[in-house]
Amino acid sequence: MTTVTHEDVRAAARRIAGHVLRTPVLEIAPGLWLKLELLQHSGSFKVRGAFNRMLSAGELPESGVIAASGGNHGLAVAFTARALGARAEIFVPEVTSPVKVAGLAALGARITQTGVIYAEAAEAAAKRAAETGALQVHAYDQPEVVAGQGTTGLELVEQIGEVDTVLAAVGGGGFAAGIALGTVTPGGGPRIVAVEPERIPTLNAALRAGGPVPVEVGGVGADALGASTLGGLAFEVLSGPRVDSVLVTDEAIVAARRTLWERHRLAAEPAGAAAYAALLSGVYRPAPGERVAVVVCGSNTDPGTLTTA
Amino acid sequence: MTTVTHEDVRAAARRIAGHVLRTPVLEIAPGLWLKLELLQHSGSFKVRGAFNRMLSAGELPESGVIAASGGNHGLAVAFTARALGARAEIFVPEVTSPVKVAGLAALGARITQTGVIYAEAAEAAAKRAAETGALQVHAYDQPEVVAGQGTTGLELVEQIGEVDTVLAAVGGGGFAAGIALGTVTPGGGPRIVAVEPERIPTLNAALRAGGPVPVEVGGVGADALGASTLGGLAFEVLSGPRVDSVLVTDEAIVAARRTLWERHRLAAEPAGAAAYAALLSGVYRPAPGERVAVVVCGSNTDPGTLTTA
Ligand SMILES: Cc1ncc(COP(=O)(O)O)c(C=O)c1O
Ligand SMILES: Cc1ncc(COP(=O)(O)O)c(C=O)c1O
Repeated sequence: MTTVTHEDVRAAARRIAGHVLRTPVLEIAPGLWLKLELLQHSGSFKVRGAFNRMLSAGELPESGVIAASGGNHGLAVAFTARALGARAEIFVPEVTSPVKVAGLAALGARITQTGVIYAEAAEAAAKRAAETGALQVHAYDQPEVVAGQGTTGLELVEQIGEVDTVLAAVGGGGFAAGIALGTVTPGGGPRIVAVEPERIPTLNAALRAGGPVPVEVGGVGADALGASTLGGLAFEVLSGPRVDSVLVTDEAIVAARRTLWERHRLAAEPAGAAAYAALLSGVYRPAPGERVAVVVCGSNTDPGTLTTA
Repeated sequence: MTTVTHEDVRAAARRIAGHVLRTPVLEIAPGLWLKLELLQHSGSFKVRGAFNRMLSAGELPESGVIAASGGNHGLAVAFTARALGARAEIFVPEVTSPVKVAGLAALGARITQTGVIYAEAAEAAAKRAAETGALQVHAYDQPEVVAGQGTTGLELVEQIGEVDTVLAAVGGGGFAAGIALGTVTPGGGPRIVAVEPERIPTLNAALRAGGPVPVEVGGVGADALGASTLGGLAFEVLSGPRVDSVLVTDEAIVAARRTLWERHRLAAEPAGAAAYAALLSGVYRPAPGERVAVVVCGSNTDPGTLTTA
């Protein structure tokens, strides 16, 4: 029994329909699909959870919504707040890339850059929320957020039918957990390959420790996958039998990002290329005939670095 | 009666299936789709025509294939030749962007850069083909090429059902003509809005003159839309009643390219953004409830210019 269910993901899909894009899939080889979630509003899947959280809350407080984020979640909350006519206040850590900070400003959010990593920004945001009464939208550890992210998986199955395996990136784990729930079928559901950078192994460490534990945060994925501890909701789902935890090097992520650009003209940020890196580097090797989907999940990046990084 | 028919497009689709990608569609607003042909192999739709031409030819000559191209057609022919194990020799004019020349080299093609514009490179290629016996793959004015490009339209209708209007960019006209043929339905077919830069109005001038006439070639689209005369096959189709010819400014193309990146994270080259420019600039205004598809058709661009150009 988990706190968030497949039915919650279905309800989220009904709630957010029309607010988010149905992102397309691209079959790049027989039986191998990319789910192009990087083309989503605000440049990542994060609007799915943000809309589901805000639309579930009923009327929003006068003070609006508040979130802490390495960047993408903040962009999504700012986008969603603007769409729903609410104020947004976003706390970002210092690792957040200038592209993301500029994007937040363009969306009209009030921005506070504080703390070295995500966890510190999150603490400041929680404190501020207690003062203002704004609705907190957590980056990964709220049921509505996990259910919202899971609509990516539900949509994928609607688009390509049952698959054997889905590869997805893990930070705080809300995304992969949501996808695991969203892809449940009467027969069980696909294997979820949960991909993390070696330098931010929140799930891997949690599985070893028997529960979420803080890890060090570093490397190319830090501004999007930089949660230092896996979410509790995510642990419930991702410690289950359908999930494999794999780690990829920063070099593999950089190479995957480059390949996505050169071969497919997809402008992924490092976190958005992490799942594909597991495939490309051979860390995950599908069996012959295995039907595999890779979620390419973020594009908030300076495009000038696609050919130089 | 035209020389190329809807049935030819269907035959092309069967012939090239498995060689080209089925590019996805993205519904960005209710009733408004982008056909993401910029994610196609080699970064444009041009592989569709190239595969159809080469696969229709039976055994390829020892000397391989030869083409003249502003860049994208050359990339496509080089890609296709490599896939089919044939040699490729590509003639490009001096306007061709360094990104495209580098791409050609990476695909193993033999490259000759000659002439200021496409027409001069084309003349040199024809002369060389006569010497070597290589199979010529024309950039737009061969039946197999037009039929191949038309599979984009056939696929579009399979993906989203009947639409009222399709916007597509015009250079030599093979692409838009193919799409007009590929989208034919028992009831007629959608309106084709054929979009050209004001600075390269090959179709517009042909319609005024009653037949293809040379025009001056300039502006931001010149390295892809730089044919100076509309193709004869294209004129047969595009002078028909279902087609509207519209012109867009270079400024509108630049703005559309920027919007495609900022809002949708699509890395279009100027030619690839021209059709969307007609919509965004208001040169084409859909009626309420009109179902509109815009083909975003090329991505061979330096991504560093997406935010600066
Ligand atoms: C592009 C991208 N991919 C993956 C993730 C990981 O999501 P989660 O924290 O829910 O595991 C994030 C989180 O910000 C992200 O921005
Ligand atoms: C990206 C792109 N769009 C449109 C066109 C125009 O195609 P056509 O010459 O068949 O009209 C071209 C031609 O090279 C192209 O490269």
